[in-house]
Amino acid sequence: MRSLRVRTQRRTELVEITESVAQALSGTDTGEGACFVYCPHTTAGLLINERADPAVAHDIRGALDRLVPQDGPWTHAEGNSPAHVKASLVGSSVLVPLVDGALQLGTWQGIFLAEFDGPRERVIQLRILS
Amino acid sequence: MRSLRVRTQRRTELVEITESVAQALSGTDTGEGACFVYCPHTTAGLLINERADPAVAHDIRGALDRLVPQDGPWTHAEGNSPAHVKASLVGSSVLVPLVDGALQLGTWQGIFLAEFDGPRERVIQLRILS
Amino acid sequence: MRSLRVRTQRRTELVEITESVAQALSGTDTGEGACFVYCPHTTAGLLINERADPAVAHDIRGALDRLVPQDGPWTHAEGNSPAHVKASLVGSSVLVPLVDGALQLGTWQGIFLAEFDGPRERVIQLRILS
Repeated sequence: MRSLRVRTQRRTELVEITESVAQALSGTDTGEGACFVYCPHTTAGLLINERADPAVAHDIRGALDRLVPQDGPWTHAEGNSPAHVKASLVGSSVLVPLVDGALQLGTWQGIFLAEFDGPRERVIQLRILS
Repeated sequence: MRSLRVRTQRRTELVEITESVAQALSGTDTGEGACFVYCPHTTAGLLINERADPAVAHDIRGALDRLVPQDGPWTHAEGNSPAHVKASLVGSSVLVPLVDGALQLGTWQGIFLAEFDGPRERVIQLRILS
Repeated sequence: MRSLRVRTQRRTELVEITESVAQALSGTDTGEGACFVYCPHTTAGLLINERADPAVAHDIRGALDRLVPQDGPWTHAEGNSPAHVKASLVGSSVLVPLVDGALQLGTWQGIFLAEFDGPRERVIQLRILS
């Protein structure tokens, strides 16, 4: 198991981590398998989407903020229930095909940490499944 | 493959199954791997989020009920289309890092069966990937 | 790794691919494992839900279209930001339990390619994890 530290800068933000994941895998020789990327947090998640135009990540973040507005009703007293809901919607892990330690993402795809209650330092865990 | 039976009590409800999953895995000696938790139902799903304060699960359930209201328009005649939509949003499986049969969840994380068309008895399947 | 080509017919559409996935796996002898189905696109995703009544897939598609309406505000200039958001919500992969090359889906479950920016030809990748 390897891990990455990611510093987020805003309350809600998609931070691309594709290169960091790729570097953490370099030197592994896995044959065919999958990279299991795991987020151990409950107010952030992981997703795969377009990396070519940063406006896409911006729009995904904005749409999630509109889908789960800050005003509830909420019962959890910390005021970050929308972050928990958004993390549940995008999910806590992604799986990416892997060949000999190289991520086999689609042409336009990147891996994003979806921060919903930042800014914070987040830890992301990587594991190879075969 | 191992399986769990989970009795849900309400129409929509998040039921924490972390301890049941952990017990079902005890005694397995897997080295490093992942626990693949699978929901074979179409009106329930699985998600990972905060287990410390039960108000979080309550808020997630409530937000999903507001996101997908009971009134459609719907074409499926059984009246449970919102349950199918919510199950599609949260997903039918979760993956959790595993070391020697012990779940490696984050500090605040638990595994939840997300019931959207209860009350029912549900079956959840577990498998170890390495 | 095996792959499927799927021709979609509409802008947004759920296309069932269960039989194509099952055929691509036939002849593999895997013991117990999981089938990792991966979508390398950023405006389409994958989900598991009911295959028995096609009205369910129709209702899921409709609900996603209402959740993420075409009018934004959006900053991505291609006009397909809603498709990227919907793909992020449903996710880029599904995992299905596998025994000796046979998918172990629940009674009512099927695997669907969720097209959000069609019509197009899509490629879906399959890999066996054990």
